[in-house]
Amino acid sequence: MGGAWPEVVILGGGFAGLAAARVLERARVPYLLVDARNHHLFQPLLYQVATGFLEGPAIAYPLRALVRRGRVLLARARAVDLEGRRLLLEDGDVLPYRHLVVATGSLPSDLGVPGVGERALLLKTLGQALRVRHRLLMALERAAREGAPLSLVVVGGGPTGVELSGALAEFLRYALPRDFPEIPEARVVLLEAGPRLLPAFRPALSRYAERALAHLGVEVRLGAQVAAVEERGVRLASGEGLVGDLILWAVGVRGNPLPGLPADARGRVPTDPYLRLPGHPEVYVVGDLNGLGFPQLAPVALQQGAWAAGNLLRALRGQDPLPFRYRDRGQLAVIGRNRAVAELWGRGLAGFPAWLLWAFVHLRELVGFRNRLLVFLDWAYTYLFREPGVRVLPD
Amino acid sequence: MGGAWPEVVILGGGFAGLAAARVLERARVPYLLVDARNHHLFQPLLYQVATGFLEGPAIAYPLRALVRRGRVLLARARAVDLEGRRLLLEDGDVLPYRHLVVATGSLPSDLGVPGVGERALLLKTLGQALRVRHRLLMALERAAREGAPLSLVVVGGGPTGVELSGALAEFLRYALPRDFPEIPEARVVLLEAGPRLLPAFRPALSRYAERALAHLGVEVRLGAQVAAVEERGVRLASGEGLVGDLILWAVGVRGNPLPGLPADARGRVPTDPYLRLPGHPEVYVVGDLNGLGFPQLAPVALQQGAWAAGNLLRALRGQDPLPFRYRDRGQLAVIGRNRAVAELWGRGLAGFPAWLLWAFVHLRELVGFRNRLLVFLDWAYTYLFREPGVRVLPD
Repeated sequence: MGGAWPEVVILGGGFAGLAAARVLERARVPYLLVDARNHHLFQPLLYQVATGFLEGPAIAYPLRALVRRGRVLLARARAVDLEGRRLLLEDGDVLPYRHLVVATGSLPSDLGVPGVGERALLLKTLGQALRVRHRLLMALERAAREGAPLSLVVVGGGPTGVELSGALAEFLRYALPRDFPEIPEARVVLLEAGPRLLPAFRPALSRYAERALAHLGVEVRLGAQVAAVEERGVRLASGEGLVGDLILWAVGVRGNPLPGLPADARGRVPTDPYLRLPGHPEVYVVGDLNGLGFPQLAPVALQQGAWAAGNLLRALRGQDPLPFRYRDRGQLAVIGRNRAVAELWGRGLAGFPAWLLWAFVHLRELVGFRNRLLVFLDWAYTYLFREPGVRVLPD
Repeated sequence: MGGAWPEVVILGGGFAGLAAARVLERARVPYLLVDARNHHLFQPLLYQVATGFLEGPAIAYPLRALVRRGRVLLARARAVDLEGRRLLLEDGDVLPYRHLVVATGSLPSDLGVPGVGERALLLKTLGQALRVRHRLLMALERAAREGAPLSLVVVGGGPTGVELSGALAEFLRYALPRDFPEIPEARVVLLEAGPRLLPAFRPALSRYAERALAHLGVEVRLGAQVAAVEERGVRLASGEGLVGDLILWAVGVRGNPLPGLPADARGRVPTDPYLRLPGHPEVYVVGDLNGLGFPQLAPVALQQGAWAAGNLLRALRGQDPLPFRYRDRGQLAVIGRNRAVAELWGRGLAGFPAWLLWAFVHLRELVGFRNRLLVFLDWAYTYLFREPGVRVLPD
C-alpha cells in the first residue's frame, strides 16, 4: 500500500462513520475512512429510488468528496484482530490502528423465515434499490404482455414498509393508465404481523397511516405473520397463501458485526456507556451496530458517531470519556406524495404539515449541494407532473 | 400473448425506429414497437454518462412514455421469417406482421483485432457506459491505494474517440487533485490509425481538434494502428507496447442484422432506393443497419425512419413509394467542456461558437421535457462548478 496510513481508523461511511469523521476533520486529526463502497448512502430515501421517483446518484455521495483532511480506502474488512490492534482486509492486506471506530451498520434479517434469502427483495443498499426498480419494471412488462393482474406484497409495517407501499401505490396509480393499460388489475398489499402499523409511534398516528394508505389503494393486513416466502407469493402463519409477483422484505434488521467482535443474538455489539468495547477502550462501536439498546435510526447513528469521536479526542488529550446521552428529536414516516406522520417534542403530527416537516428535514440532512438541488428538482417535478421519472432498465 | 398485435411492426426503438413510430402516430396507424430494452437511448451523449458528467436516466427515456397510439413489446427478436412474414422471438413466441420496419442499428466491431472482446471497453449501450464509469472509478481507487500512475487509452479518432478522450481528460483534471491526490501521474492517450483525427471533417478542423485535445492534456498519437489488446495495454502494429489501465474501444461499427436478413461484409442490409428489402416490399430497413452507404449517423437514422414510414403509409393508400433523399445538415464533434468542431452548410466552424451550436442541437433533440431539463441542469452545474456529479459505484 502507498505510504503510511493514519493511526485513527473509521470503518464504515454511513451516518455514524461520517459523523465521527466530521468531528475529527474539525479537530484536524488525521484519520482513515475504510468502506467497501465509495459512497455515503442517504438510506431514508432509498425507497424512492426503488420506486423510480429518484435517481440513484441523487441519494449517494462519493466519500472522497466528503473527506478533505482524512484519507479514504475502498476495501472490505474481513475481521478485526483486537489483541494485535489491526484490521484484516479481504484482499489479504493488514491495517494497523491505534484507535478504531466501528460503524458497519446493519443488515436485513430474514427472522428465520424460509425463502426470504432466495425470493424476497431487500432494500438496504443502492444496488438493492436498483434491483427492486428493475424487478418492478420487468414485472409490469410481463403482466402487460400476458394481460395478467399484478400483485406486489410488502412485508413489514414499520416506517420502511409504510413508505415503500405508499410509493408503490402512487407509482402504479401513475404508470398503469398511461404506460400499461393492458394490465387489468394491480394490488399493493402491506403485511404487518402486529396489531398496528408503525408500532414505534402513538396509536392515533398508526390509525392515520392505515387510513392514508387505504386511501392510496394499499391493502393493509394487520396480524398477518409471514411463515414462508414461496415461489409465487407468501404463506401466512394462518395457512393462507397470498399471490405476489414481487415480495419486498421490509422487516428485521440485525447488526452487521465484524468477525473478531463479540455480538449478541441480534448481531449487535455491547459497549460501555462511553461507546467503547469493554476491555478495549481504543475501539468504539457506534450506530446500528451498537448494542446499548437505542433504536436503529439515523439520528442515533449521527449522535453516536460524533460522540465517539469526541471521546476519542478526549482520550488523545488525556481526558476522561463522557457517557453517551441521546437527544431524542422525534421520528417521521411518510405516506405517499404529501402525507406523513411525526412524533416530535412529545407531540403527534399527521397529514400535510408532517409531510412538509419531513421534506424539510430530509432536504436539510442530504449531504452535498448538488444532491440537495437535484433531489429538490426531482421532487418538484414529480409533485407538479406526477410522473416517476426513472423508469429505465439498463441492459 | 394478450390480444392481437397490430399488423405494422417496428423492430428497434433507436432514432430510426422512433422516427418511424412518430410518423405512424401522426397518421393514426396502429403499430407495435418491439425492443429488447425498455428505453430509447440518446447515444450522442453516452460518453458523458461514461465519464460521470451525466446520470444514465438523463439520456434514456422509457419507450412506453413515448408511444401513445402504438403498443410496446419488450422482447428480443431471434430471427425474421421473411416468407412466413413473422418475427421469431427469443422466448419462443412468434409475431406475425403485414409490414415490418427493421431498425436494429449497429454494434461495435473489433475489426479483427485480437483481445478487443475480452479486454477493451465498448460504448454503445447504457449498460456499457455505466460499466466504463465503474471501471474508471475502480482504476482510480486502485491507483490511489498503490500510489501508482494511471493510463487511459482510447482507440479511434472519430467523433466518439475525440469526445470520450476530451471528457476523460477533463474528468481527471477535476478529480485527481481533489479526490485522488495520491495518484502521482495520469495520462489519456488517443490512438488513431489514420493520418488525422475526425477524417469525415475537413483537415483544418482535424488540426483544431488535435490542438484542443493536446491543450486538455490528451496525448494524440496519429498513424498508431492497434494490433492487439493485451493484459495491461495495447500492442501497436509497429511492435511498440503501450500500458493502459483501461482500454476504450471507439472504432469500428458494424450493422446488427437480424438472422434471416441478407447482410453485406459490414453487417449492413442492402435495400432498394425506397429503403425496402429487394423482393420484400413489405420490409423496410433503416438507420445504421441500412446498406445504401449513408454514414452511420443519427440524422440519417432519423430521416430514414421517417421516410420508410412515409412509404409504408403510401403503400397502405395504394400509392407508389418515393426514393430516399438525404438532407445533409452537417456534423458536429465536441472537445471538452466548451469547444467543438462543426461542418455545416458547407462551412467549417470551430471553438466556442461550435460548442454552443452543439449544445443547442443536442438539447433540442433530446427526447422529453424532463430529460431536457435535467441534462441542462447537469450541464449548467458542471459548467459552473466543474464537478462531474456522478462518481458513485453502486454495489
